[in-house]
Amino acid sequence: MKGAQTKSLILESALKLVSVEGLGAISIGRLAKSVGLSKSGLFAHFDSKNALQEEVLERASNEFVASVVRPALKKPRGIPRLQAMFDNWLRWASSGRLPGGCIFVGAAVELDDKPGPLRDTLVKTQKDWIATLATAARIAIEEGHLPEAPSPEQIAFELYGIMMSYHLYKRLLGDRHARSKARDACHRILGGD
Amino acid sequence: MKGAQTKSLILESALKLVSVEGLGAISIGRLAKSVGLSKSGLFAHFDSKNALQEEVLERASNEFVASVVRPALKKPRGIPRLQAMFDNWLRWASSGRLPGGCIFVGAAVELDDKPGPLRDTLVKTQKDWIATLATAARIAIEEGHLPEAPSPEQIAFELYGIMMSYHLYKRLLGDRHARSKARDACHRILGGD
Repeated sequence: MKGAQTKSLILESALKLVSVEGLGAISIGRLAKSVGLSKSGLFAHFDSKNALQEEVLERASNEFVASVVRPALKKPRGIPRLQAMFDNWLRWASSGRLPGGCIFVGAAVELDDKPGPLRDTLVKTQKDWIATLATAARIAIEEGHLPEAPSPEQIAFELYGIMMSYHLYKRLLGDRHARSKARDACHRILGGD
Repeated sequence: MKGAQTKSLILESALKLVSVEGLGAISIGRLAKSVGLSKSGLFAHFDSKNALQEEVLERASNEFVASVVRPALKKPRGIPRLQAMFDNWLRWASSGRLPGGCIFVGAAVELDDKPGPLRDTLVKTQKDWIATLATAARIAIEEGHLPEAPSPEQIAFELYGIMMSYHLYKRLLGDRHARSKARDACHRILGGD
């Protein structure tokens, strides 16, 4: 029981670190220090740096599902659900729990040229999320909430872009209107208030 | 004369390296090797790693202006010019000269949490580019090519997002339809064929 709690604490700390510095910057030594363990104490929970990176991505993915996807799936089919996915996503990317912003955005740029299992895991999480968005968009079209065109895949592509632009405007450029720009852009695709 | 050529060669090589590995990964030793110089030979051209990183960003910025901005400014005011900016930008991001994709996208994620002169330089290049896009959009509105809303700043924000999404879909997800998705999204904002 205590082991699982310690592991969870380590992952929580690693997530914050990765959000700011990137997956490549994870250092077992530094992480051990931040949670008050010795290096060997930390290795008792993770075999290697690679294993730790994998688990950080998996943990982030679980948290994303819990705070973005699952609450949205409780909303009515169609626009309410799709809109909730987008709103939760914005909230996720600017949450204090991830001081350096969405770790998937960072990882996407960090890993795009680095083939291997970690990149494969990341690609899977992003494809899953894009498919989830596209399914929600398809349902909104079926419900008659959205026109037949653009296609569900196109809607997912465009929402992804709005999110990335929001991330950059807010975090790099310090634009205080980033959120309202993101909402306006989303509104032009999804309509409604 | 020869000194300037060598320096240019070094920067060219550094640009490719940064495109794949990021600004932080620039190593004087590795770079020296890739252009056939000794470390001290390379230091004759750049005082420090910081200076080299600054010059790489500046070089990328000059190339961006030469291959994206300047050719577009020769197009007629309004949609033709704005569309050319977008088309040239897509081409830039997938050009073979940048094997790891647009270095500004990488740098944006890499530097957003790292205050300092390098980040300041990057922010300036991105603000300049966004202002250039917004000005082109403003002219398109004045020419009656686009409606009064969305605002020029909003159009720039959305084009930025399309570009980022394109980058991620193409480079990370390997989506062969990334370009046509980007063009469709652009078309919905700018209209035309």
